[in-house]
Amino acid sequence: MIGKIQAYLKSEQVDGALLTSVENVTYTTGFRSDPHERWLAVWIPAEGEAILICPGMETSDAKAAGWHGKIIGYSDTQSPLELLKNEIGALNSLAVEKNHLTIDRMELISQVFGECRMTAAEHFLNDLRVVKTKSEIELLKEAAALADFAIETACSELEEGKSELEVLAKVEYELKKKGITEMSFSTMVLTGENASSPHGTPGQTKIKKGDLVLFDLGVVYQGYCSDITRTVAFGEITDRQREIYDTVLKAEMTALAMVKPGVKSSELDLAARKVIEDAGYGEYFPHRLGHGLGLNVHEYPSITSESDITLQAGMTFTIEPGIYVPGVAGVRIEDDVLVTENGYETLTKFPKTLQTF
Amino acid sequence: MIGKIQAYLKSEQVDGALLTSVENVTYTTGFRSDPHERWLAVWIPAEGEAILICPGMETSDAKAAGWHGKIIGYSDTQSPLELLKNEIGALNSLAVEKNHLTIDRMELISQVFGECRMTAAEHFLNDLRVVKTKSEIELLKEAAALADFAIETACSELEEGKSELEVLAKVEYELKKKGITEMSFSTMVLTGENASSPHGTPGQTKIKKGDLVLFDLGVVYQGYCSDITRTVAFGEITDRQREIYDTVLKAEMTALAMVKPGVKSSELDLAARKVIEDAGYGEYFPHRLGHGLGLNVHEYPSITSESDITLQAGMTFTIEPGIYVPGVAGVRIEDDVLVTENGYETLTKFPKTLQTF
Repeated sequence: MIGKIQAYLKSEQVDGALLTSVENVTYTTGFRSDPHERWLAVWIPAEGEAILICPGMETSDAKAAGWHGKIIGYSDTQSPLELLKNEIGALNSLAVEKNHLTIDRMELISQVFGECRMTAAEHFLNDLRVVKTKSEIELLKEAAALADFAIETACSELEEGKSELEVLAKVEYELKKKGITEMSFSTMVLTGENASSPHGTPGQTKIKKGDLVLFDLGVVYQGYCSDITRTVAFGEITDRQREIYDTVLKAEMTALAMVKPGVKSSELDLAARKVIEDAGYGEYFPHRLGHGLGLNVHEYPSITSESDITLQAGMTFTIEPGIYVPGVAGVRIEDDVLVTENGYETLTKFPKTLQTF
Repeated sequence: MIGKIQAYLKSEQVDGALLTSVENVTYTTGFRSDPHERWLAVWIPAEGEAILICPGMETSDAKAAGWHGKIIGYSDTQSPLELLKNEIGALNSLAVEKNHLTIDRMELISQVFGECRMTAAEHFLNDLRVVKTKSEIELLKEAAALADFAIETACSELEEGKSELEVLAKVEYELKKKGITEMSFSTMVLTGENASSPHGTPGQTKIKKGDLVLFDLGVVYQGYCSDITRTVAFGEITDRQREIYDTVLKAEMTALAMVKPGVKSSELDLAARKVIEDAGYGEYFPHRLGHGLGLNVHEYPSITSESDITLQAGMTFTIEPGIYVPGVAGVRIEDDVLVTENGYETLTKFPKTLQTF
């Protein structure tokens, strides 16, 4: 990984890259840590040895995580950038994550190193990270299996009069007992009317017979994210609700069936959207079809009608069509999808035929 | 609030402020929302009407949250900055949060508005936010009461052989049932050896007789954060552990007793540190005494031996001395403290005399 980044840095004629997001530090060093207000960074020179920069009390954790390179561990009274300068000397140019580095930190870099040319590293890193390695895929599979477990737990908790928050609480309780302390994003359990808005939030609404219940959740497993949505029926639902469910399912299956290397990402979105439009629900599908998935729960590429990324084996992203008709039904079905040599594999495996409880 | 910011903007001779952090948008508009990758901002001109900028589907939420001013709601295909420019016209200078705005967004502002002078808004906002209003104090009290409830729950869950994660899972489960879905930070439940490192993480370690168990947690209540630490005994502890506990408690009580308007923040840190140093544990208290608390769980001011902030009535911060002797004991006691006209009030009320279970 670092070799590829160095080749890029040479081609860009910059002295090195200073990467500062948790995800890119994890990607390049294997060490994942939440630095809060402190600096966490990796310095990758165009030539020579990479250096991890982290709070001093985390250096042993970084080694335990498998980083065998240089480490600058700093105390709260030391400037990590000054320590880096002592190590590497002057700089004329560097690549940074412009979508992560804040202005005050940019100014600090200029204070310590003098005015440097700063180029954007994020586009190259997106391209690098978009195709997952074998070991990344293993972690994504594990994260997806835990998301399946969470959906199973959620379904087994459904009960007349129970609130969305009670179900949500139990799901995360069971995950924590398995060692999962971090969700990819705020878990959603939405029932009835609440599910029919694409941006509802879980609350004290009680589950009642005839509701469609929507779960959208994901876990972080060793840094890698999953993201699943299932919508299930609690008791008898109406024909209209059933029609909406079947339309969403057909849209998802249509897009899934097209997934293989060489296809454009926009074709997936357009195909799923056409199914929904043809059924007369076009205006009720207000969001993109999906998004890349990896160290970030939302990462490159975005799967929209305009995103012309050519699919390659090893890419992972979500496919998640939805229809939200206020007062009638909110249905979304979402899978984590891996592009394989000849087609695809869904990493999330919970059934998609309508489950009734 | 907005009036004070406008007076400041005039004095700084900038055209306005574009605030982009969730906390400062909440502070100035009352609307709190997690924008993920999207723009959420408030434009406050030096003169004239403030404008909230948010995703279009959130405009009704913003109004429901009490924002009666202008709103620019944008769709995913629109540029929020272009829409703002249509509304306000040209700009020569603006204040931004340099510790929040990223370089790519700074460049986007320059693309849309042309090269502008950008000054740092965060210092003025820190000064403004440091003294809490009556209604902010009410919310902080509620958040602290929920943190007390969480500690009570944690204590009632202590049992021989139960893991840290099991206790943690139950605490958050009970909070979610009360409607609290967001913690101020990752909850810590640490037992025995694990608690004796100042940066332990909860895991499958089992609680056993003779352990000191450390809980550090906080909740977000309507945007406002609490942060409490308690250390309790599970069964009989040794005299050395007891001595460490008593030293930390004495350090906390010493600092608390000094809190009143006019005192310097550094005096609190130095006084607590002296208690611990005098007891021979100086090297085992490696962190600052506390930090400001409000919309952020860690905010201005930092309570260190060097931070010479003069306390004023209405300030809220934590006091949290700790001693961590590897293999022997890890003890921290933390309260949320409000400076009153004549002294202080602790918002967190759970007992500090050693509780044994």
